[in-house]
Amino acid sequence: MTDSIIQYLHLHRDTLLNRLNDFLSIQSVSTDPAHKHDVKKAGQYVADYLKDIGFEQVDLMETKGHPLVYGEWMGAGEGAPTALLYGHYDVQPADPYELWDSEPFKPEIRDGRLYARGSSDDKGQVFMHLAVFEAYMKTIGELPINVKVCIEGEEEIGSENLYEVLEEKKNQFAADFCVISDSGMVASGQPTILYGLKGFTGLEFTVTGPSSDLHSGMYGGAVRNPAMAMAHLLSSLKNEDEVVTVDGFYDGIEELSEEERELIKNVPSEDFKASTGVKETTPEKGFTAKEHTMARPTLEVNGLYSGYQGEGTKTIIPSTATAKLTCRLVPGQEPDHVQSLLVDHLEKHVPAGVTLDIKKEPLSARAYKVDPEHPLIQKAAESYTQAFGKETVFVRMGGSIPVVELIDQLYQIPVVLLGFGTPEDRLHSPNESFPIESFDKGMETLVYYWDNVKESK
Amino acid sequence: MTDSIIQYLHLHRDTLLNRLNDFLSIQSVSTDPAHKHDVKKAGQYVADYLKDIGFEQVDLMETKGHPLVYGEWMGAGEGAPTALLYGHYDVQPADPYELWDSEPFKPEIRDGRLYARGSSDDKGQVFMHLAVFEAYMKTIGELPINVKVCIEGEEEIGSENLYEVLEEKKNQFAADFCVISDSGMVASGQPTILYGLKGFTGLEFTVTGPSSDLHSGMYGGAVRNPAMAMAHLLSSLKNEDEVVTVDGFYDGIEELSEEERELIKNVPSEDFKASTGVKETTPEKGFTAKEHTMARPTLEVNGLYSGYQGEGTKTIIPSTATAKLTCRLVPGQEPDHVQSLLVDHLEKHVPAGVTLDIKKEPLSARAYKVDPEHPLIQKAAESYTQAFGKETVFVRMGGSIPVVELIDQLYQIPVVLLGFGTPEDRLHSPNESFPIESFDKGMETLVYYWDNVKESK
Repeated sequence: MTDSIIQYLHLHRDTLLNRLNDFLSIQSVSTDPAHKHDVKKAGQYVADYLKDIGFEQVDLMETKGHPLVYGEWMGAGEGAPTALLYGHYDVQPADPYELWDSEPFKPEIRDGRLYARGSSDDKGQVFMHLAVFEAYMKTIGELPINVKVCIEGEEEIGSENLYEVLEEKKNQFAADFCVISDSGMVASGQPTILYGLKGFTGLEFTVTGPSSDLHSGMYGGAVRNPAMAMAHLLSSLKNEDEVVTVDGFYDGIEELSEEERELIKNVPSEDFKASTGVKETTPEKGFTAKEHTMARPTLEVNGLYSGYQGEGTKTIIPSTATAKLTCRLVPGQEPDHVQSLLVDHLEKHVPAGVTLDIKKEPLSARAYKVDPEHPLIQKAAESYTQAFGKETVFVRMGGSIPVVELIDQLYQIPVVLLGFGTPEDRLHSPNESFPIESFDKGMETLVYYWDNVKESK
Repeated sequence: MTDSIIQYLHLHRDTLLNRLNDFLSIQSVSTDPAHKHDVKKAGQYVADYLKDIGFEQVDLMETKGHPLVYGEWMGAGEGAPTALLYGHYDVQPADPYELWDSEPFKPEIRDGRLYARGSSDDKGQVFMHLAVFEAYMKTIGELPINVKVCIEGEEEIGSENLYEVLEEKKNQFAADFCVISDSGMVASGQPTILYGLKGFTGLEFTVTGPSSDLHSGMYGGAVRNPAMAMAHLLSSLKNEDEVVTVDGFYDGIEELSEEERELIKNVPSEDFKASTGVKETTPEKGFTAKEHTMARPTLEVNGLYSGYQGEGTKTIIPSTATAKLTCRLVPGQEPDHVQSLLVDHLEKHVPAGVTLDIKKEPLSARAYKVDPEHPLIQKAAESYTQAFGKETVFVRMGGSIPVVELIDQLYQIPVVLLGFGTPEDRLHSPNESFPIESFDKGMETLVYYWDNVKESK
């Protein structure tokens, strides 16, 4: 049966690419009020597509910001599982325009890649789902499962109104699992299941010594230097083995099992030295760089400043010093708890002669992890392999996707991250692109997946 | 005999203040090319004054920058000592003008203080010397000693051309001791002998990790964070007891003797907490804040920066982190040697995964110290006490005055720092002022001093 669906996609490939081009040509830059109308137009495009292929309850829901597209096809009946498909139709601004080799909103294919803003993130991947739904509907008149579609227009500006909608309309959006195609594969053509994301917390602290900058000759030796005090505080947080030395930081974290270490080992290695320019990787003692980035928590200084930053020398003792910190968290770590451990640690270690002022980062996210052995995940891996002809690798990612954690918390359903981007896609940058191969094989993967999961309820 | 000189100063007080006002009204801002002519005019003022009262060889020496005034009175003969008087007639810019309560170049007396740019630093104090010479010459027709006067116009821009002149014309400027009135007393009305200054060295270092800022989620755990590496390096330089932990840093420093600790103890205490706003002073373990600021070396972070400094959070691993350091040195420490100790220490402690780039500060100064028991110093103390009616205190200062070290090295003569400023003078700031009491009693001190040292050869 899936053969005929895939054949439809092949037969209509040019038409589909043209329709995708129409979608990508809409300048749905959500952060720019000048494009408010374009953003809505892109939402309308998605809604029209869904209606066109037979989805019901299609609604371009108004929010306080940009609208959210809802649509459902519940024709598989109560016995079949219901998937919630999440994606977004808004895009990042395209500037600086002069760095693009072709116009960001005039899609162009070059060397097997489709160049356009949003081609990978996330219009291209949203479109693949729409096209696969179309293929099913036009070929056999139905989908193997029930589907609820939720495509928002505010992902690039923090999904401000999505959370409220998901909470308020919990029944309407309720599903057995969620599928998101807004991520990537570890390498072009390498099927990749993202089964974990890190959580996030942070804070900023300022050390204050004298009430104004002082002459280092007159007062050096009398007062504590806030920049040096900050250095002492920072180095009390993490040692040179990259082990966080904050009491309780690692409490509650599950040990990395031998199975998972094996999974991580099998992920094709990014050459960190080549991609970052460092001479040597420095993971936490006892772990590889891949293990640390994927599966161990981190604590990073994101920025700091104190005193004189100009050319040459200014012999002052600065009045203040400020540092910004964020942590990436793994399952078992509660963001608020970790934040309070950091606060306690800093307050305990602040040296005499300076005062400490802490600003807690209001945003946070819990880590997300689904069991890679979960049948819905295993079926996704199989579908990938069917389409790409290659074993699927399982990865956890050091980044955070807050909507994943939200859906996990709110709906308590597994989230399947089926991404088809590649490391070369240049998301958020000039010359964003998406491989045509990902488009073709990604759609095949989706065809197999919906069919593979139809018995999953 | 000194009575008649002092009487002259009292009798001509108004005339002298008027002449001082003329001097202060000249906008001799050496850093501003627009005032080049004014700077020369101020130099001419000094030269004319010297000629007027009978000095010889008076010369407004042209340099590559602003001119230097030379003049001498050698009438005391070969049996009498020769003093080299150093001072400067240039001033700091006066802006921001709007923060002045009266115009910076229209001197005004309010509440016993003369407000004007340069009233304390250093035109006011140079003028006191000129007036005392005048008083001697007009009253008894001679000075008790030989005097060579060297008043430069480039002190506020680093004395760029002074050093060359002092080296080239070593014979012309040769003297038995040097007197400088370009410093202050520890408190208004408190006779103060400055018998030591600190030396100076410094460097800037940059820690580089990845070749550009990285996503902290993707790469946290793989690469060393340069900001954290910088914090580790900084905290390896000095511990929380304010002890510098660089090998060899304290080598060769003379121990603080019980006598000197007693001298320092007798200096009226600056209330460091009140003047700096810190809750607690934090001197080097085993020393008081006064001892540390006056007589122990320091290492201070003057500024640092890395990564994101804006509002809120940006989850990056910065590519680089930079810190600026300076040390104040005491006798026994060679600036270049200390600088190389710092370089060695940093290079030895740089953690794996980052590289270190060090910029050595080209400017440096050796510490200066004269034995407080030296007869020329003891006579200065007595003269102070005669004029102010109060015991003189002996202080060492954490700051550096490079010209003092230069004269010490080049001429190997004692430098007597006879300063009459007060902590309230606001040098280099709006509303610079000088107490009229310092003017009167300072001139008396100088009258006594020249008379007291006449037998010193």
